[in-house]
Amino acid sequence: MKSDLDRLMQENDLAALLVTGAGQHNPAMYYLTGGAPLTHADLIKPRGAAPVLFHGTMERDEAAKSGLTLKNLSDYNYKNLLQKANGDRILASALRYQQMLADHDITSGRVALYGKTELNDAFAIFTRLQKIAPDLEIIGEAPGNSLLLQAMATKDETEIERIRKMGKITTEVVGLTAEFLSSHPAKNGKLTKADGNPLTIGDVKRQINFWLAERGAEAPEGFIFAQGRDAGVPHSQGNPDEALETGKTIIFDIFPCEAGGGYYYDFTRTWSLGYAPDGVESLYDDVRSTYDTIMGELKLNAPGAQYQEKVCDMFEALGHKTIRGDLTLQEGYIHSLGHGLGLHVHEAPSFRNKEYASDKDVLFPGAVITVEPGLYYPSKGMGVRLEDTVWVRPDGVMEILAEYPLDLVIPVRG
Amino acid sequence: MKSDLDRLMQENDLAALLVTGAGQHNPAMYYLTGGAPLTHADLIKPRGAAPVLFHGTMERDEAAKSGLTLKNLSDYNYKNLLQKANGDRILASALRYQQMLADHDITSGRVALYGKTELNDAFAIFTRLQKIAPDLEIIGEAPGNSLLLQAMATKDETEIERIRKMGKITTEVVGLTAEFLSSHPAKNGKLTKADGNPLTIGDVKRQINFWLAERGAEAPEGFIFAQGRDAGVPHSQGNPDEALETGKTIIFDIFPCEAGGGYYYDFTRTWSLGYAPDGVESLYDDVRSTYDTIMGELKLNAPGAQYQEKVCDMFEALGHKTIRGDLTLQEGYIHSLGHGLGLHVHEAPSFRNKEYASDKDVLFPGAVITVEPGLYYPSKGMGVRLEDTVWVRPDGVMEILAEYPLDLVIPVRG
Repeated sequence: MKSDLDRLMQENDLAALLVTGAGQHNPAMYYLTGGAPLTHADLIKPRGAAPVLFHGTMERDEAAKSGLTLKNLSDYNYKNLLQKANGDRILASALRYQQMLADHDITSGRVALYGKTELNDAFAIFTRLQKIAPDLEIIGEAPGNSLLLQAMATKDETEIERIRKMGKITTEVVGLTAEFLSSHPAKNGKLTKADGNPLTIGDVKRQINFWLAERGAEAPEGFIFAQGRDAGVPHSQGNPDEALETGKTIIFDIFPCEAGGGYYYDFTRTWSLGYAPDGVESLYDDVRSTYDTIMGELKLNAPGAQYQEKVCDMFEALGHKTIRGDLTLQEGYIHSLGHGLGLHVHEAPSFRNKEYASDKDVLFPGAVITVEPGLYYPSKGMGVRLEDTVWVRPDGVMEILAEYPLDLVIPVRG
Repeated sequence: MKSDLDRLMQENDLAALLVTGAGQHNPAMYYLTGGAPLTHADLIKPRGAAPVLFHGTMERDEAAKSGLTLKNLSDYNYKNLLQKANGDRILASALRYQQMLADHDITSGRVALYGKTELNDAFAIFTRLQKIAPDLEIIGEAPGNSLLLQAMATKDETEIERIRKMGKITTEVVGLTAEFLSSHPAKNGKLTKADGNPLTIGDVKRQINFWLAERGAEAPEGFIFAQGRDAGVPHSQGNPDEALETGKTIIFDIFPCEAGGGYYYDFTRTWSLGYAPDGVESLYDDVRSTYDTIMGELKLNAPGAQYQEKVCDMFEALGHKTIRGDLTLQEGYIHSLGHGLGLHVHEAPSFRNKEYASDKDVLFPGAVITVEPGLYYPSKGMGVRLEDTVWVRPDGVMEILAEYPLDLVIPVRG
């Protein structure tokens, strides 16, 4: 939680956090400002002091919505800085950051960089800042394991309510999608529109984006609606031109967020239209039994790796290959069991196999995690995944934040 | 254009470009891959050779859509790299990049970094790469002026058609918005819904997002629909709870892109509902005369700064203060005249004042630029901006990519 930041900074010997980039679609900045729609801003959080938000003159109203202490970037006279830097824009920007930090008493110690931003100029500016300010130590952190991600990984009640609301929107849209599919009769095994043309994945996706927009949500990373062979490739988003057919697996994995890059939800169902052929049903049953077992065994403070190993055990016992034996595997169980989510669709903790897991990958209180076992056989034209988002409540209860039936078959006429 | 890359790399003595991050909402990666929906990828473009796209196993189908040479990231055995790095994830990632570059014969020379990505781990990994590979020089470039931005700034015909199509969608949505406002009668100076409640800015914004989604577009950075005093603050996005009133300026600045973070359009009109009070009309006339003059004077290869200076001359002659005299100005003409646009809503070239302009800020053939004079008086409760997107055609013609009337008054009943 945000209230952990000073403690974490103390433990990690950090003098300040320096966050840069836009106010939205930028999890670090969103987290600390509340998602103000700023095109560019900087934020300095000194250890033991409140954050300061640096903004452009034209964005003073939007910056004020953050409720933070503000500082206008134009107070740092860029013309003078550029003269001092002999026209070198990288140096001028580095000098400005040096001054911004010094104005908040940060002239030595470790400063960690954050923000989803253009690496090109950021790398130039911050390596230059390191050169001109040798008493500072400008740092990044290991992938997926930064101090800020650690704070973000435990959600407070307000964050849980926002994720829960996104869950409600997500499952509403999933329900509308199921009804929409059922409302199209099958002719010769293909769902058919009123004009006689087949209903395509592209048609369904357009509807879904529309329903999300109507509810104040968006899918900035797209979503997966993949059929048959494509359902056998976990991140295939599906072929928009393809007609929807009966008796094929459809993986519908949708991970929308609040408009502007706010909190996410993550949810997957596997559907088969009209009926499920034997091979599909048995693959579904294998995934479903794993899903049920894991959901029943999740325990507060248990290491995530234990569940990933358990899923591998179960799938291997059923005759499936798993990623545990071969990182390059393309058929069987080929990914991790789940991940944290919040302002990122993927964040800490992770359910990785034990040799890659961090000791921080545990089901700590306040975590929000996905549980998503799946089996993939592109060569057989099928894949199955089931996913729900779970709140690891401080009282130890594992709560699915938006319930939705797990049924495989979507009824269709014809 | 993309075909300029090798020449630009030669001129800038670059051995390779290294792009990282997601496939969408990441202009550098989108530009070189065509917008494949990859959650994480890397791309190496050696000088004089075709780019190679590095992707995860689960995203092999989406990666293949790029048509590029592919390399599966899992071929670099992370388990071994992590062992070699004694469990240090930053070093393991740096070793992987070193190997990826070496596999494409990049063991010395300058390598420029690109991609909109999380700065935290990228800074850690690439500063570490610099340490372990001293024969490489890992670089960034000056803000707004990178080699890749230079290539991106000149658009080919296909890009122009995509921007033109976004212009068509944008002006369609603007037209629908004007009709929607007109369809609500004014009661006591406020637009009123069928249920008797006032129509709010939030109501209008929801409609607009819905119309964009319906057309395969999105507004990832939001848009501006700001009334009265808020119209006097250029980047205020407007107050969603505020009722729409007659006789106040509304700045409607909309900059949507193709869904997935593709090409943008940028467009502004200033409206006054029902009628325009004298002060509003005269402010509009001052902006309109400047807009008309500049649009008539744009010339191929002219420096952008010349037009920014011209606008300052014109506004000052009309009694308005300008940013030329004072970077911290809050009333009058307080921004630049325009900017390039493409896969970024702001890119090269820029119409900055001459002391900040680069010698590359000229109206070169193939540029797509905005022209957007404006005047802002929050203390008087008003602001006016007019903006269109212009293609600097290679034949010297300046073509507005989507025409739309500049009218100030939107008729309303009541």
